[in-house]
Amino acid sequence: MRTLIRNGTVVTATETMAADVLIDGERVAAVTSSGDLGAQADRIIDATGRLVLPGGIDVHTHMEMPFGGTFSSDDFATGTAAAAWGGTTTIVDFAVSDFGEPLQTAAQRWHEKAGPKAHIDYGFHMIVREVNEQTLADMDSLVGQGITSFKLFMAYPGVFMVDDASLFRAMSRSSDNGALIMLHAENGGPIDVLIQRYLAQGRTDPVNHGLTRPASMEGEATHRAIRLAELAGVAVYIVHLSSGDALNAVREARDSGVAALAETCPQYLFLSADDLGRPGFEGAKYVCSPPLRPKPHQVELWNGLRADDLQLVATDHCPFHFKDQKQMGLGNFAKIPNGLPGVEDRFTLLYDGGVRAGQIGLNRFVELVATAPAKLFGLHPRKGTIAPGSDADIVVFDPDTERVLSAATHHMNVDYSCYEGRSVRGVPETVMQRGQVLVDHGKFLGQPGRGQFIARSRSGT
Amino acid sequence: MRTLIRNGTVVTATETMAADVLIDGERVAAVTSSGDLGAQADRIIDATGRLVLPGGIDVHTHMEMPFGGTFSSDDFATGTAAAAWGGTTTIVDFAVSDFGEPLQTAAQRWHEKAGPKAHIDYGFHMIVREVNEQTLADMDSLVGQGITSFKLFMAYPGVFMVDDASLFRAMSRSSDNGALIMLHAENGGPIDVLIQRYLAQGRTDPVNHGLTRPASMEGEATHRAIRLAELAGVAVYIVHLSSGDALNAVREARDSGVAALAETCPQYLFLSADDLGRPGFEGAKYVCSPPLRPKPHQVELWNGLRADDLQLVATDHCPFHFKDQKQMGLGNFAKIPNGLPGVEDRFTLLYDGGVRAGQIGLNRFVELVATAPAKLFGLHPRKGTIAPGSDADIVVFDPDTERVLSAATHHMNVDYSCYEGRSVRGVPETVMQRGQVLVDHGKFLGQPGRGQFIARSRSGT
Amino acid sequence: MRTLIRNGTVVTATETMAADVLIDGERVAAVTSSGDLGAQADRIIDATGRLVLPGGIDVHTHMEMPFGGTFSSDDFATGTAAAAWGGTTTIVDFAVSDFGEPLQTAAQRWHEKAGPKAHIDYGFHMIVREVNEQTLADMDSLVGQGITSFKLFMAYPGVFMVDDASLFRAMSRSSDNGALIMLHAENGGPIDVLIQRYLAQGRTDPVNHGLTRPASMEGEATHRAIRLAELAGVAVYIVHLSSGDALNAVREARDSGVAALAETCPQYLFLSADDLGRPGFEGAKYVCSPPLRPKPHQVELWNGLRADDLQLVATDHCPFHFKDQKQMGLGNFAKIPNGLPGVEDRFTLLYDGGVRAGQIGLNRFVELVATAPAKLFGLHPRKGTIAPGSDADIVVFDPDTERVLSAATHHMNVDYSCYEGRSVRGVPETVMQRGQVLVDHGKFLGQPGRGQFIARSRSGT
Amino acid sequence: MRTLIRNGTVVTATETMAADVLIDGERVAAVTSSGDLGAQADRIIDATGRLVLPGGIDVHTHMEMPFGGTFSSDDFATGTAAAAWGGTTTIVDFAVSDFGEPLQTAAQRWHEKAGPKAHIDYGFHMIVREVNEQTLADMDSLVGQGITSFKLFMAYPGVFMVDDASLFRAMSRSSDNGALIMLHAENGGPIDVLIQRYLAQGRTDPVNHGLTRPASMEGEATHRAIRLAELAGVAVYIVHLSSGDALNAVREARDSGVAALAETCPQYLFLSADDLGRPGFEGAKYVCSPPLRPKPHQVELWNGLRADDLQLVATDHCPFHFKDQKQMGLGNFAKIPNGLPGVEDRFTLLYDGGVRAGQIGLNRFVELVATAPAKLFGLHPRKGTIAPGSDADIVVFDPDTERVLSAATHHMNVDYSCYEGRSVRGVPETVMQRGQVLVDHGKFLGQPGRGQFIARSRSGT
Repeated sequence: MRTLIRNGTVVTATETMAADVLIDGERVAAVTSSGDLGAQADRIIDATGRLVLPGGIDVHTHMEMPFGGTFSSDDFATGTAAAAWGGTTTIVDFAVSDFGEPLQTAAQRWHEKAGPKAHIDYGFHMIVREVNEQTLADMDSLVGQGITSFKLFMAYPGVFMVDDASLFRAMSRSSDNGALIMLHAENGGPIDVLIQRYLAQGRTDPVNHGLTRPASMEGEATHRAIRLAELAGVAVYIVHLSSGDALNAVREARDSGVAALAETCPQYLFLSADDLGRPGFEGAKYVCSPPLRPKPHQVELWNGLRADDLQLVATDHCPFHFKDQKQMGLGNFAKIPNGLPGVEDRFTLLYDGGVRAGQIGLNRFVELVATAPAKLFGLHPRKGTIAPGSDADIVVFDPDTERVLSAATHHMNVDYSCYEGRSVRGVPETVMQRGQVLVDHGKFLGQPGRGQFIARSRSGT
Repeated sequence: MRTLIRNGTVVTATETMAADVLIDGERVAAVTSSGDLGAQADRIIDATGRLVLPGGIDVHTHMEMPFGGTFSSDDFATGTAAAAWGGTTTIVDFAVSDFGEPLQTAAQRWHEKAGPKAHIDYGFHMIVREVNEQTLADMDSLVGQGITSFKLFMAYPGVFMVDDASLFRAMSRSSDNGALIMLHAENGGPIDVLIQRYLAQGRTDPVNHGLTRPASMEGEATHRAIRLAELAGVAVYIVHLSSGDALNAVREARDSGVAALAETCPQYLFLSADDLGRPGFEGAKYVCSPPLRPKPHQVELWNGLRADDLQLVATDHCPFHFKDQKQMGLGNFAKIPNGLPGVEDRFTLLYDGGVRAGQIGLNRFVELVATAPAKLFGLHPRKGTIAPGSDADIVVFDPDTERVLSAATHHMNVDYSCYEGRSVRGVPETVMQRGQVLVDHGKFLGQPGRGQFIARSRSGT
Repeated sequence: MRTLIRNGTVVTATETMAADVLIDGERVAAVTSSGDLGAQADRIIDATGRLVLPGGIDVHTHMEMPFGGTFSSDDFATGTAAAAWGGTTTIVDFAVSDFGEPLQTAAQRWHEKAGPKAHIDYGFHMIVREVNEQTLADMDSLVGQGITSFKLFMAYPGVFMVDDASLFRAMSRSSDNGALIMLHAENGGPIDVLIQRYLAQGRTDPVNHGLTRPASMEGEATHRAIRLAELAGVAVYIVHLSSGDALNAVREARDSGVAALAETCPQYLFLSADDLGRPGFEGAKYVCSPPLRPKPHQVELWNGLRADDLQLVATDHCPFHFKDQKQMGLGNFAKIPNGLPGVEDRFTLLYDGGVRAGQIGLNRFVELVATAPAKLFGLHPRKGTIAPGSDADIVVFDPDTERVLSAATHHMNVDYSCYEGRSVRGVPETVMQRGQVLVDHGKFLGQPGRGQFIARSRSGT
Repeated sequence: MRTLIRNGTVVTATETMAADVLIDGERVAAVTSSGDLGAQADRIIDATGRLVLPGGIDVHTHMEMPFGGTFSSDDFATGTAAAAWGGTTTIVDFAVSDFGEPLQTAAQRWHEKAGPKAHIDYGFHMIVREVNEQTLADMDSLVGQGITSFKLFMAYPGVFMVDDASLFRAMSRSSDNGALIMLHAENGGPIDVLIQRYLAQGRTDPVNHGLTRPASMEGEATHRAIRLAELAGVAVYIVHLSSGDALNAVREARDSGVAALAETCPQYLFLSADDLGRPGFEGAKYVCSPPLRPKPHQVELWNGLRADDLQLVATDHCPFHFKDQKQMGLGNFAKIPNGLPGVEDRFTLLYDGGVRAGQIGLNRFVELVATAPAKLFGLHPRKGTIAPGSDADIVVFDPDTERVLSAATHHMNVDYSCYEGRSVRGVPETVMQRGQVLVDHGKFLGQPGRGQFIARSRSGT
C-alpha cells in the first residue's frame, strides 16, 4: 500500500521543502517535487497549508512508574495514546530495576508492561540503583538487546543515589560497551539536609520543594558528572537540565572539547518557580525534580537550545493526579510525588512557544523534538526524520489553528494540566506511525499493542 | 531531460541515505529509495560505492584580485574550473571597491570579470574601504541586487582598515537593511608597529610575517568586533578565523546568546607556523593573513568545528605564483603578496583530514562545506543540499581512492601547492551543476560563462 | 621638634595596633607600645578613641583643568585645602599637554599652577594626546624628573583619543623607561556615533549621557588595552573603572598572570544611573565619564575591591559649578562639562560606606586610600603608611561622630555636593602633613605653597 | 629584659623599613628609626645587612601522626626544633580523632603529645572523620577552647572521607560557631577505582600514585567544596592545593565574591611529577597527596600566589623515613605512606625560589609565610608580624649566604631530603620566640616544652 502526502511543506532538521512524501508500506519511499508520483499512490493525504514533520520522539517518559507506594497515572496505553494525540510517535521509557534485581528481569517487567498496551513505538533506558560486577555485566547484555542507555542518580540518597565511585565505574564500563550514561544531576546529600531542616522549621508548603533544591546543587552535580565522564573518556548525558548553573557546566565542557550532552524539558522553558509558589496547595501540581526555577533561567535555556549546548527537548512525563496522589504531600512537601504530565503537550508547546515566538527556527524545532533524540539514542535513521528508507512516522501539522490546553480536553490520564487555559497555535492533524494513521483530524485510530519495541543502536553522538 | 543518480549513498547535513536522486532539468526532483523511478530517467549515473553529496560552496575567494601592483593568479575562468575539479560548484567572491568609488561601480566591474568566464555559479560580497553616507546608501542598493554581505577590515591601516566608529555605523546600517557584516579581525595598528620594528631590526624572512601578527591581536579584534555588533544588535561574521584566541571570543559570545559567526580555512586546520618557518624563502608560499599558527591552535579549531562555534570552512583562495609574485618579498616579508591557493583542495582535504581522520562526522562535513555556507549567505534552499526543488549541484564522490596533491596535477593557475605531496583519499568523480556535468571521471566538460550570478537573499542565520 | 600621638589605634594596611606614634620633624620616628617614649615629645596629641591613619593619597585629580572653554572650579589652593579637610594629604594631578607642545612645557605650566598654591604634597601624571618620536623622548625625560606615569585616552576622538598603534608604541616605550601607562578606557568611536544619533533624535537630557556610553564599550576598551599591554610586556592601569564589564576584563587578565591594574572611584560605589536620571536638569550634576552605572555594577565593584582585582580608590575630582558651568549643557547633554567634585569626601565615604557598612575591613580601607596608591605610583615608603622613616602624613580620625555631607559645609569650590544630605560617620579630626598640622578639630592651619612637589619613583607594581 | 635588634631592614607584609625593633619581655615594644632607643636595651642584636622578619607560621603539619600502622617520623620535639632551625616559630598541627571518639579526647591526646615536647608555640586543628550530633556539638566546644578550625576529607573512602551531606552539615554548623572548615579536596571515590585498576594491571611503581590521582579530580572536589560552602554561607579553606584545575575553581569563586581560601605548599612549587617518576623506588620519597603535578601547574600556582587567589604557603609536613617506612610500599604504590618532610625548608625555599627568583616581592613573602596564616587562623595580631604589642617571634635572616639543603644537615628526623643538593641563599641566623633566642648563628638554644599552646581566635578572613 502506497500513500502520498501531497502539497505540504516537508520539514527536516535541515530542509524546508515544498515536496510530496511517498510512503510505501511502513517506510518513506521518496521525497519529491515531481508531481507525477501521485499516480503510484493508493491513498492521498492532502497537506496543503500544512507542515509535514517527522513524528516526535520523547526520550524521557515514566509510564506506570512506581513511586512512594503509588504509580504514575499513565500506563503505556493511556500515555502512548496521549503522545500520539500530541504528535509524538516514539518514546523511550525508563525501566526501573530494584536493588539486587538482575537488570534483565527489570527489562522483562517493562516489556510486559509496554508490549500489550503501547500504541506507538518505544524503547527502554534502564535505571541502575547500584553498580557492581553483576549490574555491570547486565549492562553489557542489555546493550546487546537494544537497551543502550542507563540512568543513574546523583540525588535521592538511600533510594536511587549512587556515589561517585559507582558513577565512575559505570562510565568506565560504557567506554567499553558503548552505552550512554544518563544522569539525574542534583547533589542529593545537601538537598536532603535542607529538606530535613525546612521540615523541622515547619516550612512544609510546596514552594519549599524548590527552595530546598537550589540551582547551585544542580550546577555542582552537572560539573562533577562531566569531570567524571571526561576522566572515563566517555560522553555523558544530563537529563532534565533546568538551570543556568547546570548549563554553564555543559557549556564550559563543550567549549573545551568534552562530550557533554543535555536535554531540557518544556516545564523549564514555560513554567517557573512562580508556579510552584501558587497559593494554597496548588503549587503541588508543579512539583518535579529538579524544581521549576526563577524565570531568568528560561532565558539561559533558550540560549542553550539555540547554541546547541542543549541538544534536545524531552518531557520527563511522570503524571500524578492532584487528587489523592499529589495530595499525599499535604503538610509535607517532601511527600508530594515528583513529576508532571507533559508527553502530549511538548510538540505543540515547543512549536508555539519556540518557533512562533521567534526563539528557534523551524528546522531546529524538528531537530530538538525528533532528529536529535533519534541520533543520540540510536534510533536514527529509522526514526527522527523524513527520508527515503526511514519509518513513515509523520505528523501533518496545522500550524495556525488555535486551541486551548486543558485537562478537560487532553488525553493523558491525569486530572490537571500544567498549562490549563494556555492558548497555543498548532494541531497535529494527522499522526502516522510506520504508515499507519493513528490520529486523523480528531479521531483516534490506534490500537493498544500495535507499538513495537525498538532495539536501539549505540548513541550516534 | 531527467537524470537518475542511482545506488549511491546520499548525504546531507542531516541524513545518510541509501537512495537515488532524480534530477529534472536543473533541479532535484526527488530523493527516493523506490527503485521504480529509474524508468523515468533519460540518463543514469551509477553511484554504487559512492557518496552523493551537495556541491561545495566556498564563500571566501579572491579571483583576479588586485594586490600591490599585481593580481591573484587565478581569474574566474581558471579559478572556477579548479573549484569544479575539486567538488565546489558555487563561490562567493569578494568585489573590491576603491576609495571614493560607488559600490555599484565596483560590483559592475566584478560582474564583468566573472560573467564571461565563470564555469560555476557565483555571488559577490562587497569590500568596503570607507563608511560614509554614500557607501551606506550603496549598501542598501546592493542588498536589493543580491549582494547581501559586506566585508570590512580591522587591519591594513591606510589600505583597508576602518576605525571602530565606521564599523559601528556599518553594523547599525545592516540592522536596517539585513546585510551581514564580515570582518577581517586583526588589530592592524600594533601589527604595523611590529612590522616596522622587525624590518628595522633586519628580521626580514617570511617567518616574521607570523611573528608580527600575534594571535592575541586576532583575539582582540574578534572580541571588539563582537562587542560592537552586540551594541548594534546584529550578527557579525568573522572571516578566516585562525586561532584559539579568536575562537574564545566567539565561544563566549555564543554562550551568552550573542550572534557571533565564524569561518575557518583548511590552511589553519592542516598547516602551521612550522610551514611559515621553512628554510630559505620557501616560507613565502605560506604567507597569508592571519598567519598560520602554532599547532596547538589546530586542536582548538577542530573543537570549534565540532561544537558549532565555527559554522563553516571556506578557503580564502587568493593564489600568487611563487616565482615573480611571492618573490616580490625577497628581503622584506612585508612585500610578499598575502594569500594561498586552496579552492580546489578544500572539499577533499576536509573529507580526508576531517571525516576519515575522525575529527568530524560525514553529515557535519556536508554542513561545513555546503549547507551552512548556503544558509548563512542566503543561497539556501537553492544551494547547499540535495532536496527536491534545490539546484542539482551534486558531487558523486569516490571516498576511497587515494591521490597525491601537487602543483603538477592541480588545476589552479599557480606554480606551487601548499600540500605538495600530501596523500589524500577521496575524488570528486562526477561534478554536476544545475544538472549539467562539469567534471566526469577526470574529464572537464564545463564552459566559461556557463556559471550564473546568484542574487543572494539575506542571511538565514 | 618631636610630637607624640598617644593612645590611639594605629592602623596600616596590615596592622591594627594600640600604639603611639612618635614624630621627629617631618617624619615618623617610632611606632611603640612602650609608654616611656612620651617623655621625649615636645607636643602630645591625645588620640584616645581615635584611629591613627596614614594620610589619604588621591592619585586622580584635575585641578584648574581647562575643559571646553572653562576650567574645573577648584584650583590647587581650594582643591588641596579641601583634600586636607577630608583627610587626604597627597594628590597626583593630571598635567595636560597640548597638541604639538613639548611635554616638559606642559609639566612646567603645571608646576607653576601648583607650586604657589598647594597646601599638600602633590605629584603629576602627564596626559599625552599624540604619540610620536618627540613625545616618546619627552616621556623618558619626565620619568627622570619624577613624572613617572602617563595617561592616554581611548575616548574623545579629535580631542584626546589616540589610536591603538599609538597606545602600543607608548606602552612599548614604557617597557624601556619604566613608566606606567594609565588609560581612560572607553571606546570613543561608537560612543560618538551614539551621541550624534541621540542628539539628532532630540534626546538631549543628561540621562542620555549614560545611555550613549554603554558599559560594554568600557569593557571592550579595557580588554583591548590589556591585550596591547600584554603584547608590549608591561603593566597597564585603568583609571576610573566603573562597570562589571571592565572589571571582568581585569579579572581574566589577572587570573592568567597578566599585570592589569585598576582604580575605581566613590561615585561608582555610591551613586548610580538613577542619579543621572534625576528629573529636570538635576542629572547634570552627575555627569562624568565613564558615566554612573546601574546599581548591580556596584556589587561587582565591591567584589573587585575585596578580591584585589581593583587595587585602589581615587576620585577623578573634576568639579564644575552647576550654575553657569554644568548649565552649558542645557538642551544638549554633550555640552555638559564632564566631572564631579569628590576629593574631600573620598576618605570618609569609603570609611563609612565601606568599613562601617561591612564591605571591607579597616586594613583594606587604609590600603585602598593610601598604601596601594603610594606603592603603585612610586610614593612608597615615603608616603602611604605609618612607619619609621615615612613622612608624618597622618589623620587622627574620629570614627563615630556623625555628620552630613553638603555643599553648605564642604570646602571644595563648587556649588553643589553629589552627596547632599547624606549622613556619614567619621571625621578627620587632626590632619598632619610632614609633622605639620593642617586641620585641627575644625580649624584650618595650612598655608598655600607649603605643599611640595614629589618626584615619584617608578611604579612598585 | 629589653632587647634591641638594631640596624636591620624590618620587613612586614606591607613595609620594608630601615628600623630597629625594641623588645620588652616577650613582646615587641617599638619599631623605630630613632637611634636613641638603644640606651633602653639590655641586649643588642646587630642586624646590619640582615632582614628582620616575623617568625614563620606553618599551619599544616603532622607531627607523630599515626598512618597505616606507623607514625610520621617527627614528633613535637624533633619537628618543632627543625621548624625553629628553619625560621618557623609557630605551627598549627592536625589532631586526629578516631571514629566514635569525642573530639575533646582527641584534642587532649594531642595536648599530651605536644605539651612536654614542643620547642615553639603551636595550635591545633581537629580532623573530623564523621559528622553527627555529637561531633557537631564537640566542634562548638573546641572553638571555645581555641581550636577554631576543622579538617574534613573528600578523599580516602573508609578512612577519612565524609560525604557531601556531612560536609554541608559541618559547614552549616561553622556558620554558627565561627569555625573555619578546611578540606582535603580530592574526589576519593574515582581515585580509589583507578588505584584498584592500576594495581590489578600490575602498575605498582610510585609514579602510578600520581597517575591515579588526576588533577581534574582535585579540581572537581575543590569546585564542589566551594559550591557547598557558598550554599552554607561560609568561607572554605582548601589545604595543599596543587593544581591549576583546583586553582581555577578558587579563582572563579573569588571573582564572583565567594569566600574561597587556599594554601599551596613548597613541594607543588618546586617539585613535579618528574620527581615522582624517578627511577627505581626513588619516587617513593615524593609520594604525597595530592600528588606532585606536571610542571606547567607550577606556573599557575605562582600566578595564584601573586594574585592572592592563593593566600598562603604551608608545608603539609608529614615525614616518613625512606627506609622501612616509605619502603612499605615496595611493589604496591598504594602502601607507600603519604607525606613529605618540609617544615624546616619552607621559609628559605620560598625566599630563595620566590623572592630571589623574582616570582614574588619581599612583603608578599612575609605575608605568605607569616601574616596571612596568622590572620586566617586567628593568631593575629599576636603572631605573624612585627608590630608593637605582638609576640617577639622574629627571624634575623641573612639573605645572601648560600647553603645546600641535605638530609646530612637538616634537623628533621627523616633520612632523606626532597631537595637534596639544592643550593639556596638565605639563612635564619637568629630565631627568636617571645623574646627568647631559639637559634643563634647555628647553635640551638631551645628547650622542649617551652612552646605554648595558643588558643586561637576565629578566622579573620
